[in-house]
Amino acid sequence: MKTRIKAGLYKYRYNHMKIDIEKIEGGIDVVPGVQAAAVSCGLKKGDPVDDLALVYLTHPAVAAGVFTMNKFRAAPLLVTEKHLNNSVRALVVNSGNANACTGEQGLSDALATAQAAAERLGLQKEDVLVASTGVIGSFMPMDKITAGITEAAATLSPSGGRDAARAIMTTDTFPKESAYRVSIIDEGEGKESVRLSFKIAGMAKGAGMICPDMATMLAFVFTDLELERDFMQEALGEAVKRSFNLISVDGDTSTNDMVLLFSCPGVDKGGDGDGKELLAGYEILQEAFNQVLLQLCRDLAVMMVKDGEGAIKLISLTVRGAKDYNTARKIARSVLNSSLVKTAFFGEDANIGRIMNALGYSGAEFDPLLVDLYLADLMVVAGGCGLSFDEQKAAEILRLAEIPVLIDLHMGEEELLAWGCDLGYDYIKINSSYRS
Amino acid sequence: MKTRIKAGLYKYRYNHMKIDIEKIEGGIDVVPGVQAAAVSCGLKKGDPVDDLALVYLTHPAVAAGVFTMNKFRAAPLLVTEKHLNNSVRALVVNSGNANACTGEQGLSDALATAQAAAERLGLQKEDVLVASTGVIGSFMPMDKITAGITEAAATLSPSGGRDAARAIMTTDTFPKESAYRVSIIDEGEGKESVRLSFKIAGMAKGAGMICPDMATMLAFVFTDLELERDFMQEALGEAVKRSFNLISVDGDTSTNDMVLLFSCPGVDKGGDGDGKELLAGYEILQEAFNQVLLQLCRDLAVMMVKDGEGAIKLISLTVRGAKDYNTARKIARSVLNSSLVKTAFFGEDANIGRIMNALGYSGAEFDPLLVDLYLADLMVVAGGCGLSFDEQKAAEILRLAEIPVLIDLHMGEEELLAWGCDLGYDYIKINSSYRS
Repeated sequence: MKTRIKAGLYKYRYNHMKIDIEKIEGGIDVVPGVQAAAVSCGLKKGDPVDDLALVYLTHPAVAAGVFTMNKFRAAPLLVTEKHLNNSVRALVVNSGNANACTGEQGLSDALATAQAAAERLGLQKEDVLVASTGVIGSFMPMDKITAGITEAAATLSPSGGRDAARAIMTTDTFPKESAYRVSIIDEGEGKESVRLSFKIAGMAKGAGMICPDMATMLAFVFTDLELERDFMQEALGEAVKRSFNLISVDGDTSTNDMVLLFSCPGVDKGGDGDGKELLAGYEILQEAFNQVLLQLCRDLAVMMVKDGEGAIKLISLTVRGAKDYNTARKIARSVLNSSLVKTAFFGEDANIGRIMNALGYSGAEFDPLLVDLYLADLMVVAGGCGLSFDEQKAAEILRLAEIPVLIDLHMGEEELLAWGCDLGYDYIKINSSYRS
Repeated sequence: MKTRIKAGLYKYRYNHMKIDIEKIEGGIDVVPGVQAAAVSCGLKKGDPVDDLALVYLTHPAVAAGVFTMNKFRAAPLLVTEKHLNNSVRALVVNSGNANACTGEQGLSDALATAQAAAERLGLQKEDVLVASTGVIGSFMPMDKITAGITEAAATLSPSGGRDAARAIMTTDTFPKESAYRVSIIDEGEGKESVRLSFKIAGMAKGAGMICPDMATMLAFVFTDLELERDFMQEALGEAVKRSFNLISVDGDTSTNDMVLLFSCPGVDKGGDGDGKELLAGYEILQEAFNQVLLQLCRDLAVMMVKDGEGAIKLISLTVRGAKDYNTARKIARSVLNSSLVKTAFFGEDANIGRIMNALGYSGAEFDPLLVDLYLADLMVVAGGCGLSFDEQKAAEILRLAEIPVLIDLHMGEEELLAWGCDLGYDYIKINSSYRS
């Protein structure tokens, strides 16, 4: 019924229907009805750069969100969580100031931000979501924020997506965008006709994830497919679990992390089907949506790792044969978070013992005598015992820009793929004076 | 009844008895009956350095031990745990090879090491404990080990402690030793007479602890006070919990970590009391022993942090007002292990947000709105809200070689003191090519 067409993507067939998923160029503005603008408010030190993004939805949207597990929850999260249950029309994101650990004043500032956007756009403040990233523990300069919102509202554009993606960056070195088109094609009666076509696109901000702490991670995903909130919330939760949570893993989330999914189906986009009906009718379409959402989140997550502060190498770690997701994730977290493992990869040193060590202290349940370990296809540990492997071959693998590592626990059916990066001099350089 | 005389040490009085605890020069060989030797077996690459230490006890000793929580337990641990219940006469420690992840062969090598020492010293192999530190996943070169033991057995000396402390080093830059003399003095009838006097001394190996992974940590403590095994085991467990476990925190222990305590009272050491009787009779003496053992372990632990690979600054973190030990330790671990916090200290950047962030994702139970944070005596967060503090003063504090940080949760009575260090360029330099 379904055929894998490339890494993580499927071509679905169901009776006379087929579902095509196609990667397309561009960012959030490929989705009809999404307008954006970016302005510089002077929130960041140094030369002026864009530091505030405004996203405006031409039609009311339904939204779902996944938020940080951090005990300190920044003020904008509290506001956005509350406003999420309304029909949503706008999103304000600023970089440079996290509005976290700012108490009552912070909450009132976050509300004032939503209010300012609502006024400029003729909305209620409850229609506006807000997000912030930057320095923790300082109050928002509200005069700059409101001036910025006024300017942004006046420059909204159906092609402002890239600028918005750039404005939400902090230590990121490149903007992070990904987009897909999904088509449901009726092949009945000998000819193809598009029953339904929708787009899904996202932008994200984040660098220096599992490598080795969580900096703030923000991601915003938009689709013009009509969806119900409960379905969206579940789909987003699952996608985050298999993407962003495998780079930021576990509770190591910052005060400001959030991932939002917006369904904004207001604009007529051709085809003659109705998304909601189709989703209800065809489980296969739900699965296709979940699949494309996961792929999109993975695209953005891997970009964050590649943009890891000072990172040079991407480590893609497969944990196979775990008894469950949490066991596999504990191991991924422990290994990819280990500074000793990360510096060994930076030094292209096949220090297998450090991986075994991190595995051993992960707290995960496994049998040490069953563990196999591979660097790419080179087996270096069998049954928990170090092999005397081909050092030449190991050195070649460690010179790769993306190094595949496989840990097989032989304890169960769970398999997951997580991403990390090395730790080199540039990480220290970037992070020893971020604030000043 | 007791008077604090200096950090962590007490002068005890009980009726007409007083207990003096005095820091003295030297290492394990200040304890009567402890002989040691160090030799070079060629276990480490590069120029020959001592890499095997042999400790011989002239009289049978009682031993207690605390071992790694790592799932991969190195072969020497398995042997030592088993032999610990016998009366112990010798200890072999090698650096350069951890004998970990080495399967059956590793176990047989660890036993052969004990056997070799037993033969040279006229003992049973069950009288010998073994410990290893170094590269994981390689088999022990047993010919070198046995040759080394033969040489060491022939050069045992009552003043070999410092050499032994040096031989167990790996990335350590200095040997770690500490020693105390404890005297129980009878002040009755107008004149002082020493009822009992004992010594306690230790050596340790370890660098790059909480900063940020656990490298192997070994510590060996000897006393000539006569003690019972159960009391020793409990005393050692408590001391480790408040010293080594606050630098290596939680489950992040390496495959080879162990801390051993030896009671070797065989040599007559003057005074006319009997240690065991006194301990049974006076709870206050037990407390004094616990106190001096804790202080000794803290001395060694702080030396490890100061020798943190590439570390320049010591961070001494007090977590106050926690509801229990585990809550406080989770917080200490999270904050002191955070690479973002550590690089901020390296850069002398008062990035308070990173500390709050690490506190927030620690997984510990606390109320964010009650948290106060201080750098030395400068309050920077009150009730979870960042203060606009004196940046000049903060900069001065961050220039200190030892930076006191205080987190007050206002949730309970538990207080602990933990130690960490900064993260700078030298950490990368040391760890990116340790193995090669």
